[in-house]
Amino acid sequence: MDEFELIRRYFDRAATADGVVIGIGDDGAVIEPTPGLQQVQVIDTLVEGVHFPENFNPTDLGYRVVVVNLSDIAAMGATPRWMTLALTLTAADDEWLTGFAEGLHGACVEFGVALIGGDTTSGERIVGTVHITGEVEPGKALTRAGAKPGDRVFVTGTVGDAAAGLDGLRTGQPVKTLFNRFSRPSPRVAYGRALSGLATAVIDLSDGLLGDLGKLAEASGAGAEIELERLPLSDDLRGHYSADEQRRFALTGGDDYELCFTMSGEPPDPGILQVTEIGRITSTPGVACRLDGELVEIEDPGYLHFQ
Amino acid sequence: MDEFELIRRYFDRAATADGVVIGIGDDGAVIEPTPGLQQVQVIDTLVEGVHFPENFNPTDLGYRVVVVNLSDIAAMGATPRWMTLALTLTAADDEWLTGFAEGLHGACVEFGVALIGGDTTSGERIVGTVHITGEVEPGKALTRAGAKPGDRVFVTGTVGDAAAGLDGLRTGQPVKTLFNRFSRPSPRVAYGRALSGLATAVIDLSDGLLGDLGKLAEASGAGAEIELERLPLSDDLRGHYSADEQRRFALTGGDDYELCFTMSGEPPDPGILQVTEIGRITSTPGVACRLDGELVEIEDPGYLHFQ
Repeated sequence: MDEFELIRRYFDRAATADGVVIGIGDDGAVIEPTPGLQQVQVIDTLVEGVHFPENFNPTDLGYRVVVVNLSDIAAMGATPRWMTLALTLTAADDEWLTGFAEGLHGACVEFGVALIGGDTTSGERIVGTVHITGEVEPGKALTRAGAKPGDRVFVTGTVGDAAAGLDGLRTGQPVKTLFNRFSRPSPRVAYGRALSGLATAVIDLSDGLLGDLGKLAEASGAGAEIELERLPLSDDLRGHYSADEQRRFALTGGDDYELCFTMSGEPPDPGILQVTEIGRITSTPGVACRLDGELVEIEDPGYLHFQ
Repeated sequence: MDEFELIRRYFDRAATADGVVIGIGDDGAVIEPTPGLQQVQVIDTLVEGVHFPENFNPTDLGYRVVVVNLSDIAAMGATPRWMTLALTLTAADDEWLTGFAEGLHGACVEFGVALIGGDTTSGERIVGTVHITGEVEPGKALTRAGAKPGDRVFVTGTVGDAAAGLDGLRTGQPVKTLFNRFSRPSPRVAYGRALSGLATAVIDLSDGLLGDLGKLAEASGAGAEIELERLPLSDDLRGHYSADEQRRFALTGGDDYELCFTMSGEPPDPGILQVTEIGRITSTPGVACRLDGELVEIEDPGYLHFQ
């Protein structure tokens, strides 16, 4: 099986999706942008041994490489439309590819994004890069840059589960529900769209709440203060870790793929999604944390690839 | 230097390019597509040790990872506009990054494409993935699929140089002018646009002339016949290799990034670019080669990542 056969067999589902003029199989894909809309483009890479453990379930990987990009689309308030995939593989293994394609196509169907092209290469490590193009009303894209002192700070869902799940794998005491939050993140695409025009700033939580909120604050020329008692923690996280550990995972663990956003008024109706107010935007640079009203020091700035 | 500082230092040139609403630095980039045009999207990956040798000059790599994608844009007859970069690095080395960024930005300036976003990660091997969005008049994108029996087959430039250049590096007898064709390919963007509306089918030569022309013929439901005497070979290739070796590099060597195209009439004025007629489209599947009028067998189907 060469890479051309591989693409035909696993990735070319001949999707006749809206706006796709020419899909997989030529030198490039041709799409028809919706007249009057702007585009949001995102690209994100998952490297074996860095972003996911060796022997990670291929179906989960296929799903995850799509949704981590959808999380960026969500943070911009856009609607995902078209996707390209660059996949580096160590071997053309049928069972692995079948699983990977199942997860990938599953995420595409779930979130309404069409795979239009890609590139498959060989290498010594699995590296998956996905590029997604979304669409948004002109001027309505959400950024990190509009938060103002006094704005309330919110997060969706619960934080810290994915990092705790990964920690359980490392220590040999995996908690399935927590690890699922790592392997199958839920990008908040619908809620990101609902925030468009309402939130003053949004970021998705990929590197950890403290670090990511710090980036939002910095981009806004402001600071932030959060109250640690208000952090939304899952029952699973509370049930398996000490209060200190819970807080460490929630503040400095990455891979949550929740949205952190700011606004002065009430957030839009989240439906069944949990949305929690955790603090305020301030005029003092940096992110301050309070526990029982007292300022506390937190050290880890989140995951860094190079230090 | 963490990856955020790395992006600021080497990649964020704060380009105020046409159609860029929000560039590098947020969760995604925002662009404004030109009203009335379709888009061509391409993605291509270069893996260290697979697509380029270890210790490859970083400036050449930065240039090359852009132009291999521009070659796909050229083969579709589109105008390149916006680019995202996913870069996996083994270390954040200032000298390497300075060189890589120089080559990358140089190619962007030369071909008028704007870097709007990306993702930088760590890994055990250098992997560079570039995604480029181009624009084209509706229905004018060139594909591999329109060649008809009787159409003439043309190639731009000369073929085989890049593979010979790489061979020289492997055997320890590098020929600088040939290796330059590998490290600094010339994507035929302007000529690709000139072919729009004229050529019946186009493909860019990345995996070798025989294999790539075979893909064009297959996509067109046809075959092809080429006359080996007509292959455009450079003086450098002729000067350093035997007739058999010249032919092998020209037919089965990859990395030329020339265009191979078909049409029934005369090709558009190539200016200083060389354009050579090498054969005909036939109704017999596959690619037949003739030398002095006699059919000859050629074995290698071009570079395959998995076999």
